[in-house]
Amino acid sequence: MPRLVMKFGGTSVANLDRIRRAAKRVGVEVANGYEVIVIVSAMSGKTNELVGWVDEISPLYDAREYDAVVSSGENVTAGLMALTLQEMDVPARSWQGWQVPLKTTDAHGQARIEEIPTENLDAKFNEGMKVAVVAGFQGISPEGRITTLGRGGSDTTAVAFAAAFGAERCDIYTDVDGVYTTDPRIEDKARKLDKIAFEEMLELASLGAKVLQTRSVELAMRYNVRLRVLSSFEEMSDTAGTLVCAEEDIVEKNVVAGVAYSRDEAKMTLISVADRPGIAAAIFGPLAEAGVNVDMIVQNISEEGRTDMTFSCPVDQVARAEKAMHATKEAGEVNFHDLVADTDVAKVSVVGIGMRSHAGVAAQMFKALKDDGINIKVITTSEIKISVLIDRKYMELAVQALHDSFGLEKAA
Amino acid sequence: MPRLVMKFGGTSVANLDRIRRAAKRVGVEVANGYEVIVIVSAMSGKTNELVGWVDEISPLYDAREYDAVVSSGENVTAGLMALTLQEMDVPARSWQGWQVPLKTTDAHGQARIEEIPTENLDAKFNEGMKVAVVAGFQGISPEGRITTLGRGGSDTTAVAFAAAFGAERCDIYTDVDGVYTTDPRIEDKARKLDKIAFEEMLELASLGAKVLQTRSVELAMRYNVRLRVLSSFEEMSDTAGTLVCAEEDIVEKNVVAGVAYSRDEAKMTLISVADRPGIAAAIFGPLAEAGVNVDMIVQNISEEGRTDMTFSCPVDQVARAEKAMHATKEAGEVNFHDLVADTDVAKVSVVGIGMRSHAGVAAQMFKALKDDGINIKVITTSEIKISVLIDRKYMELAVQALHDSFGLEKAA
Repeated sequence: MPRLVMKFGGTSVANLDRIRRAAKRVGVEVANGYEVIVIVSAMSGKTNELVGWVDEISPLYDAREYDAVVSSGENVTAGLMALTLQEMDVPARSWQGWQVPLKTTDAHGQARIEEIPTENLDAKFNEGMKVAVVAGFQGISPEGRITTLGRGGSDTTAVAFAAAFGAERCDIYTDVDGVYTTDPRIEDKARKLDKIAFEEMLELASLGAKVLQTRSVELAMRYNVRLRVLSSFEEMSDTAGTLVCAEEDIVEKNVVAGVAYSRDEAKMTLISVADRPGIAAAIFGPLAEAGVNVDMIVQNISEEGRTDMTFSCPVDQVARAEKAMHATKEAGEVNFHDLVADTDVAKVSVVGIGMRSHAGVAAQMFKALKDDGINIKVITTSEIKISVLIDRKYMELAVQALHDSFGLEKAA
Repeated sequence: MPRLVMKFGGTSVANLDRIRRAAKRVGVEVANGYEVIVIVSAMSGKTNELVGWVDEISPLYDAREYDAVVSSGENVTAGLMALTLQEMDVPARSWQGWQVPLKTTDAHGQARIEEIPTENLDAKFNEGMKVAVVAGFQGISPEGRITTLGRGGSDTTAVAFAAAFGAERCDIYTDVDGVYTTDPRIEDKARKLDKIAFEEMLELASLGAKVLQTRSVELAMRYNVRLRVLSSFEEMSDTAGTLVCAEEDIVEKNVVAGVAYSRDEAKMTLISVADRPGIAAAIFGPLAEAGVNVDMIVQNISEEGRTDMTFSCPVDQVARAEKAMHATKEAGEVNFHDLVADTDVAKVSVVGIGMRSHAGVAAQMFKALKDDGINIKVITTSEIKISVLIDRKYMELAVQALHDSFGLEKAA
């Protein structure tokens, strides 16, 4: 029998009414002939309440006890969902992480999934169970203690189950109806994508689109799990949401899939650095140690043995970066004339696997920005992405200009 | 190292402040040289919230899912208590029922404890753990699913751990400061008992004193676990609370230990029943099948082959009892002239192991009631208890009269 994984986030199971609505969707898929594995989050607000208690008791808490406490919210939802399905005459039962067992590393609070043996669930499916409701976000360590998977852990749980059980698809039900060409709050012509490639989704996720957690997309790409993001508040249909899938499953594509942005960036420039082999390591080693997440790096053309080195980082890490740089200067490890920070910049990126085979995307991007009088401060590119740093006040204008220039309001 | 079990009920762990106060008590016992097993209930109100959700979803719920849901409250408290102890530099960790493992039958919702292997906790005590915080009320079935132990399950968990780990004593922290000679709300001269025998506590518990659950007292008696009931809201002291222990550990004793009552009783009389062998079975078999909890039974002296049969049951089961009796009459199984229900009665009992060796307790009881003009409707006795059914309006007067007559305001 074909299998499906359906994951419901916290807002989709926030109360008994919503659990009932989610259960109805599960019932429809069972009627469609699927054996379903449902992954549930805690009812919205519950995990935050538990985390708040732990933080209040001890800022430096034992992560093993943290995990034992915060995993309880998912257990409640799993049981309630199983009961709701049974009430609809759908044979269902709940599973906690340790019962599956979902085996993880012992990195409590951010454990990684090691293995999901399928025997226990398979045995119940063979006995006639139609739905296994599994508490998301949690597993069991080699020592037999409860672990949690960190942020977005329930998405990751869902993808891992889809891979382990060979599910036809993994449906992630959330409070948005899919992945958009850009943020609809900024560009009202933003269009929901029917399909997007894993690589594109990864770039968009790491660039700040909050629909799916990066880790779950990575895992889906690695195991080629077809991932669908859709809203639990809309009518069910075969074309609902956005399918995240392999490139070859997408026939018609725009060259650019979407425009992403990141608002709170800072640009830092080391003026007149001695240009010698190893200078980049001498700068970025101490920054990494200081916990600065360096993103874009540009080195200007060197003249007379001196160069300017520019990098970007989140704006709230500027002070940390300055402290680290001045320390390396005092230690005589890096010599520079000045360190200039520009804390009023934003990053705008266009993403699309079509770029690989399509020249001129960069030129078109730069022209669109120039036509609106937007100055580009830093450029970086990857195979399927071009990012620019611009003044923050032009960010929304830039997103709109690029969305328009690449014709994203229309499907290919 | 000597061991102690300390159990904290829902009101004693109702919020982080109270958990901190409970943890301080645990810390004192650790400083006294004990290895401590702490059994915790859910924060007060939490279990009711969970039960409410389950009931709302399905009146005829799957008890296995019920258990998975309602057991989560204790897990939260266990983790929070362990964190609080760690914050006080007491080496502690939490254990959920399945981690111990506390093995039970598969009678979900009212499982019985089968076995508590000590290896896992002992290994951690040997590594230097001073406190094992165990989630009460829950265990694991032979099939590997979560079970709960039913009403008062956390008291039972505590006593079972005390027996399994050979604890010196099992302290039950609650919101009352001990066991009283009678209900202080009815008799303001009621006196807290320093000690009470298991048998007496059992009678008082089953007669409606709500301090300890009957099952936990039975278990304590069977394994000779010294049980102390005390308040978590009073100063710590060696003489706090009431010690429930074996009869031989109590040197000085009143003949009567306490006066118990049960308010909502009904008295039913089958008038003019054919008196033949097997008539009692013919009556009480169908009542048991109908779920009527028959308590006292009295058969009047039979005349000319007919007799009156009187019994008592909870007042809310009268309709059920009437229906069952009329059905047996129609089926020709029991023939009676009339069925009379008196729904305005209450039961008052005196309890004391001293009665075994002391004649005249019944006579003294009946005289005390007579002196206050209270008519006795039914009498039953056991080795250490005398119960009477009286008009409900005299119940409080009767409790006071008996408390006074047996001198319970003074210790022996």
